[in-house]
Amino acid sequence: MNHELVNTSIRPEEFLDVLSKSEVLRLLDSSKGGLYELFRNCSLAVLNCGNEMDDGKELLERYQSFEIKIHQTQRGIKLYIDNAPASAFVEGRIIKGIGELVFSVLRDVVYIGNEIELDKLTTSESLTDAVFHILRNAGVLTSSLKPNMVVCWGGHSISREEYDYSKEVGYELGLRGFDICTGCGPGAMKGPMKGAAIGHTKQRIKDGIYLGLSEPGIIAAEAPNPMVNNLVIMPDIEKRLEAFVRLGHGIVVFPGGVGTAEEILYVLGILLHPKNQKIPFPLIFTGPESAKDYFAQIDAFIKATLGEQAVSRYQIIINDPTEVARKIKKGIRKVRKFRLKTDDAFYYNWRLHIEHEFQSPFIPNHENMAALEIKQTMQPHLLAVNLRRVFSGIVAGNVKDQGIRAVEKFGHYEINGDKAIMELLDELLTSFVQQNRMKLPGTRYHPCYRIIQN
Amino acid sequence: MNHELVNTSIRPEEFLDVLSKSEVLRLLDSSKGGLYELFRNCSLAVLNCGNEMDDGKELLERYQSFEIKIHQTQRGIKLYIDNAPASAFVEGRIIKGIGELVFSVLRDVVYIGNEIELDKLTTSESLTDAVFHILRNAGVLTSSLKPNMVVCWGGHSISREEYDYSKEVGYELGLRGFDICTGCGPGAMKGPMKGAAIGHTKQRIKDGIYLGLSEPGIIAAEAPNPMVNNLVIMPDIEKRLEAFVRLGHGIVVFPGGVGTAEEILYVLGILLHPKNQKIPFPLIFTGPESAKDYFAQIDAFIKATLGEQAVSRYQIIINDPTEVARKIKKGIRKVRKFRLKTDDAFYYNWRLHIEHEFQSPFIPNHENMAALEIKQTMQPHLLAVNLRRVFSGIVAGNVKDQGIRAVEKFGHYEINGDKAIMELLDELLTSFVQQNRMKLPGTRYHPCYRIIQN
Amino acid sequence: MNHELVNTSIRPEEFLDVLSKSEVLRLLDSSKGGLYELFRNCSLAVLNCGNEMDDGKELLERYQSFEIKIHQTQRGIKLYIDNAPASAFVEGRIIKGIGELVFSVLRDVVYIGNEIELDKLTTSESLTDAVFHILRNAGVLTSSLKPNMVVCWGGHSISREEYDYSKEVGYELGLRGFDICTGCGPGAMKGPMKGAAIGHTKQRIKDGIYLGLSEPGIIAAEAPNPMVNNLVIMPDIEKRLEAFVRLGHGIVVFPGGVGTAEEILYVLGILLHPKNQKIPFPLIFTGPESAKDYFAQIDAFIKATLGEQAVSRYQIIINDPTEVARKIKKGIRKVRKFRLKTDDAFYYNWRLHIEHEFQSPFIPNHENMAALEIKQTMQPHLLAVNLRRVFSGIVAGNVKDQGIRAVEKFGHYEINGDKAIMELLDELLTSFVQQNRMKLPGTRYHPCYRIIQN
Amino acid sequence: MNHELVNTSIRPEEFLDVLSKSEVLRLLDSSKGGLYELFRNCSLAVLNCGNEMDDGKELLERYQSFEIKIHQTQRGIKLYIDNAPASAFVEGRIIKGIGELVFSVLRDVVYIGNEIELDKLTTSESLTDAVFHILRNAGVLTSSLKPNMVVCWGGHSISREEYDYSKEVGYELGLRGFDICTGCGPGAMKGPMKGAAIGHTKQRIKDGIYLGLSEPGIIAAEAPNPMVNNLVIMPDIEKRLEAFVRLGHGIVVFPGGVGTAEEILYVLGILLHPKNQKIPFPLIFTGPESAKDYFAQIDAFIKATLGEQAVSRYQIIINDPTEVARKIKKGIRKVRKFRLKTDDAFYYNWRLHIEHEFQSPFIPNHENMAALEIKQTMQPHLLAVNLRRVFSGIVAGNVKDQGIRAVEKFGHYEINGDKAIMELLDELLTSFVQQNRMKLPGTRYHPCYRIIQN
Repeated sequence: MNHELVNTSIRPEEFLDVLSKSEVLRLLDSSKGGLYELFRNCSLAVLNCGNEMDDGKELLERYQSFEIKIHQTQRGIKLYIDNAPASAFVEGRIIKGIGELVFSVLRDVVYIGNEIELDKLTTSESLTDAVFHILRNAGVLTSSLKPNMVVCWGGHSISREEYDYSKEVGYELGLRGFDICTGCGPGAMKGPMKGAAIGHTKQRIKDGIYLGLSEPGIIAAEAPNPMVNNLVIMPDIEKRLEAFVRLGHGIVVFPGGVGTAEEILYVLGILLHPKNQKIPFPLIFTGPESAKDYFAQIDAFIKATLGEQAVSRYQIIINDPTEVARKIKKGIRKVRKFRLKTDDAFYYNWRLHIEHEFQSPFIPNHENMAALEIKQTMQPHLLAVNLRRVFSGIVAGNVKDQGIRAVEKFGHYEINGDKAIMELLDELLTSFVQQNRMKLPGTRYHPCYRIIQN
Repeated sequence: MNHELVNTSIRPEEFLDVLSKSEVLRLLDSSKGGLYELFRNCSLAVLNCGNEMDDGKELLERYQSFEIKIHQTQRGIKLYIDNAPASAFVEGRIIKGIGELVFSVLRDVVYIGNEIELDKLTTSESLTDAVFHILRNAGVLTSSLKPNMVVCWGGHSISREEYDYSKEVGYELGLRGFDICTGCGPGAMKGPMKGAAIGHTKQRIKDGIYLGLSEPGIIAAEAPNPMVNNLVIMPDIEKRLEAFVRLGHGIVVFPGGVGTAEEILYVLGILLHPKNQKIPFPLIFTGPESAKDYFAQIDAFIKATLGEQAVSRYQIIINDPTEVARKIKKGIRKVRKFRLKTDDAFYYNWRLHIEHEFQSPFIPNHENMAALEIKQTMQPHLLAVNLRRVFSGIVAGNVKDQGIRAVEKFGHYEINGDKAIMELLDELLTSFVQQNRMKLPGTRYHPCYRIIQN
Repeated sequence: MNHELVNTSIRPEEFLDVLSKSEVLRLLDSSKGGLYELFRNCSLAVLNCGNEMDDGKELLERYQSFEIKIHQTQRGIKLYIDNAPASAFVEGRIIKGIGELVFSVLRDVVYIGNEIELDKLTTSESLTDAVFHILRNAGVLTSSLKPNMVVCWGGHSISREEYDYSKEVGYELGLRGFDICTGCGPGAMKGPMKGAAIGHTKQRIKDGIYLGLSEPGIIAAEAPNPMVNNLVIMPDIEKRLEAFVRLGHGIVVFPGGVGTAEEILYVLGILLHPKNQKIPFPLIFTGPESAKDYFAQIDAFIKATLGEQAVSRYQIIINDPTEVARKIKKGIRKVRKFRLKTDDAFYYNWRLHIEHEFQSPFIPNHENMAALEIKQTMQPHLLAVNLRRVFSGIVAGNVKDQGIRAVEKFGHYEINGDKAIMELLDELLTSFVQQNRMKLPGTRYHPCYRIIQN
Repeated sequence: MNHELVNTSIRPEEFLDVLSKSEVLRLLDSSKGGLYELFRNCSLAVLNCGNEMDDGKELLERYQSFEIKIHQTQRGIKLYIDNAPASAFVEGRIIKGIGELVFSVLRDVVYIGNEIELDKLTTSESLTDAVFHILRNAGVLTSSLKPNMVVCWGGHSISREEYDYSKEVGYELGLRGFDICTGCGPGAMKGPMKGAAIGHTKQRIKDGIYLGLSEPGIIAAEAPNPMVNNLVIMPDIEKRLEAFVRLGHGIVVFPGGVGTAEEILYVLGILLHPKNQKIPFPLIFTGPESAKDYFAQIDAFIKATLGEQAVSRYQIIINDPTEVARKIKKGIRKVRKFRLKTDDAFYYNWRLHIEHEFQSPFIPNHENMAALEIKQTMQPHLLAVNLRRVFSGIVAGNVKDQGIRAVEKFGHYEINGDKAIMELLDELLTSFVQQNRMKLPGTRYHPCYRIIQN
């Protein structure tokens, strides 16, 4: 890895640098209520792209001298950057795609910091509206959007074979004109975009969208690839997940670890809700031949915890990228018809009912983790809520700055639950560890959790 | 005038129709706190374009059956329009430029109604920020903007000769690449745009800006011409005036009536402030040969009330469009240098100091009008504040719906002041009446004011 | 008129400046076979735009010191201009639209001079192909073209009322999305473009086409207005006329003089041909109230010479611009259906049969003029051929450099023919003279012809 | 390989489908003078893209039933395709990039067939002009072009490692904003484009150029990759080579076989000419570590045949893509300065002197091959001429339809020459065979030549 540092200044070419005096003041403010720290850390993560690293804490520690300063000029805002990772630059000048992402960060930090009052979002409606406003402000919601946004989920740490497979799926999706949305890190979040870019080029699609949805907590661990041409920083994982399911017209899940499991439980928990039963939502789990057992295990875990109805909402396709693209195409055609029939927007899935439990932020501290109830007697969609939180907590302990520090200080998270579920969970997590799905290869994984069977 | 009515539906092709559920609800809400009434009335004014009429009350009364309904669809918002003036349509389809203006109205009504809390804007800084945010949301402030926005002021009711002259000035400005910003009604607000459009066409400038700044109170009386390709509805006359002077890089004033006098006093009052003395701001009063006496009178009034220093801030050019354009060009070159030197934005004149008295909304009811202090002993820039308010009140009594109704109910506004000033004022207003500058020709003008000399 | 001269250099921003070495050499070559003279004279005409002058000889004499030099540079060709008319410049820099037209001249002079072997065009097919190739090379023929090109014919010297009327018709056509093609001089060739430009602006049509078709002989007398954004220099009047009828989807004729009469006879002569009887071709003669008698006289002349069948191919509409636009719209809808049914191109009316007599260049010298046969016993479409030539000759004698010189040297053209026709012709020409349709007002018209009744 | 066949029709979206009647007739004409055969075969080659095959004869034999028909419609030309290779289609619709390439073929076949009289191109100037006109007609020469076209040469049959290396070099070039031009087949002709595409995406360069220069003889063996967004079919290898050196601002050579050797000898032969000695022309030979010996051998061959001066015109860089890009950047900066100084065009290297021997087409039949003189006493740049012809002949015998058939019929080509050179040549060719550089892996190579030492 290149550890050189670079000092430079960058300017946006676009609209969003036009800030009011009060906005600039808040960005420069490094006190508690200010936005400087948030802006600096997310920018650093973006500038670190290309360097494979999935440890938020490590990133912040390595680049302690990194600084980013805002300066008003005649033509808008200029950013002065000190001691940035060299990988973002070519011959001393920032790679333009990365510069754009820094300004995306700026845009979202300013907007969320000034226009969204997170504390006041108490109702489900207001939370959904907030997600909408953030996405709209980011220019992601447009009336010209056709239903062709495919969300791709999967691990940041996957094998070369799985990565190449995700590229092939992306290529077939791109050939068919689909856009790609991922969590914007490496691995399965990058492969489909790369593949789609080639498909788009061959089809002469110049405005293909490679949308990355991130959050301040995870971005340091999963730096957006410069392929990403739309980046949105959502305030937390719950709003990020809501953004995925309201924006996406279909979801493809590649092999992954706990983050992927969290996503699967989130979407299945929502689709299981009685109000959502008639809403079409193509959901495909796929991987190369070698991922066959992996998905069998996931499948078994879902069946055992959420039941057959959950199983009926997805399809598993092994080693057939063309078939995945065709199924997605067919599924999205149904989505389109449904939206037309119900007069629902193409660009935002308003009709999807999301329970408040799925929306309210879960803070994965030791107390909250230990308190999560996991019982077979729970309603499937509520069990899904808590299982998602379990996985969410483990993600934090694995890669998020705050989570890592908490585990360093207080020891393992404790996870309690019914024996039957706990055994399955243990098995699943163990296999993730064995398959190197918890952390990037080259580092030894130290579990951040302990499973306790009641 | 064509009194036919048309029913139809229109859709935007652009981004801004993407509204959240809560925004749509407020737009549909015709109760007190709702936005329906405001949206309806401004839209009606826009649709009435092309029909010469300068009476806000008359417009609303004539088209009582006009309705505009909002409907969410898959691709954004659709507007259903009932009983609209036929002049906005060609063979049953809305003229595209007018359709765009309706969506500009929608955009501003939604933004001001949801994002700007007018009641809380107590400081000068917050008012300036609010003006900035409204303009930015309207897409008017961009970092690619060079300093070339020329504000053109002048009467809505002017002679054919004066109108043709304003077109010629616009043409010379357009040939030199300048954009035009006006209050977007007929007369001197339309001529310069038409002229500039031809200049731009000859210079192959395809993205020439014809910016109209209006306000809900006046738009019914001064419907934007379809040449306007950027329309912004500011909340009130004070914010509208601030928008003019912060956006414009130079101002050309054509002959006009009380509205024009209000504008002149506003800008001179600001330029007189000690903090603004070093800020370059090209300001030119111009008209054809026949307007020579008119400007001599204005000149005398300014000298007598605001003094020589005020006179030094403007130039009077008679019957020389090319010279006007050259002087503006020279003046704006100085503005550019000054902004570069002081690191001030090109797109917003942050550095211009505007006293709180100029910003806080003045409600021109009978009580407030009568209470205005007008004395020769006042500081010039404070005298300018109150003289502006006098003219502002008369504009309301002449053409604004609410003002007309108030005068109908309570009789003339009373204006008190020092004899010396009152005599000059009386003379000026009388000449406006004689020259048909108060109302469009064809209607007899009934003064809405009475001057009382102390 | 401004007689200042300007020296400057201009560069194109577009593709066509990329010339090969041999092309540049021929452009620089002022010997007989070279292209310099042609290029210089047409460029001078373009640069003279805005100056009202309709005398080709006068132009060339006044600007004898004018020179235009070609210079190859790294980024293409640069033109150095010496002693050009000042009206083409703003503060020393060429008006961009005029600069473009100079490069259009360059393009056509190079193409026709190098790629079209005029001498070898002996068959009707090869002549039609040549017209096609010149237009295609000029970028005028595109597959994205819908059938919406309205050709507007009419005089360069018309009254203010007629001019304003032609603007109104253009406005109504522009509002309905039609493009305009004219012979690109002043008067009725400019009004419709100006009107359409405003209609297009209101409809936000940014790529409206204002196509001017000229020829080296006439361009000095009818300089293209800078509104023209596509200029094509056809080699001679016959190819120019063919271009009009193959490109246009409908024709509107405003009042005019001999040139207009030539155009009317040309199109009617073609439409009268048996092979063209089923081809729809909207053709409207229109003018303000004051033009009523004018068109009655034209109508009578056509009836008397070409017969009722010719009369059935056009409609006369007096003082109703909206009706003109509606009729054109209706007529062009039929054209569209016909082309779809017959698989004919939208962008070129291949199917229209044009007799070789209409295509082969007629040199209007004294001998040829005197030899023209004009008899009532001729077939109508052949009589049309010769009548067109008569008018063509008079145009040359009136405004073309070579024609004027020939008349100065050899006296009047003599026109012989059957008494009945000669009387009508004399009447028609006399009225043109009386109505100032022969030459721009301010100059006294000296007839260049003499009518001899057999 | 997918052997399915597809029938469909395609339409261009662009300008070039607008053909005249005579042009269409010649395209439909399958007789000797007609263009059908040429158009059909080149189109088939383009449609075969993605299928790895380097045997022109095999392609034509496999798809004997393939047909392509031209049909005029209202909006231009439609192509009906029968029995085309399935790989060009997604779900029955042609991949848009491939469709574009078919229309590029159409454009060039029409232009060369109608506008270029190959027989008459006897002088060096006229040949250079012809190359210019073909490229200009293809839209490749534009005045907006900066000097940033990097030509990449190298084998179609290279190892995975070499291919990946060529991608990396392309990536570094793309990051620095360079466009890529290759012979548009697989291997080293595809890798740099793929890499550059990713570099361009990261730098948000949307109009990156991936220019492929082919010729009818080779295109069947080296089908353009769909990355190619500009394809030009030059009439023969000599004009194709001239196009490379006149368009390119620098050349990077990757490992390859006889085709690459031909290219190296061509460019060195030209650069050796005394008139070209002062013309800067960056030329870099590069490959991964494993290619070190390969380039040492090439280097030795050049030194022994063309001498030290030839060696001084190139640099060999092993395993350092960034260094290659930096050297190219530096070299092209010199090219830019030189063109500025000498007023030479950026888009076409007019100043480069090319001897007539390098331009006149060499027909590689048995007689011509046997007659080639190869002696150490020859002037280096003339020896280069004949050595290039030797390699050119072997390329034909290896992969071109006509060459393969000739060798099948008449046996090996015989190559005579001085013993010293023949030994080196034998060695070089033998190593190409051993390294699988003659044909795609999987097929056994049967030499088409025999070396005879005098």
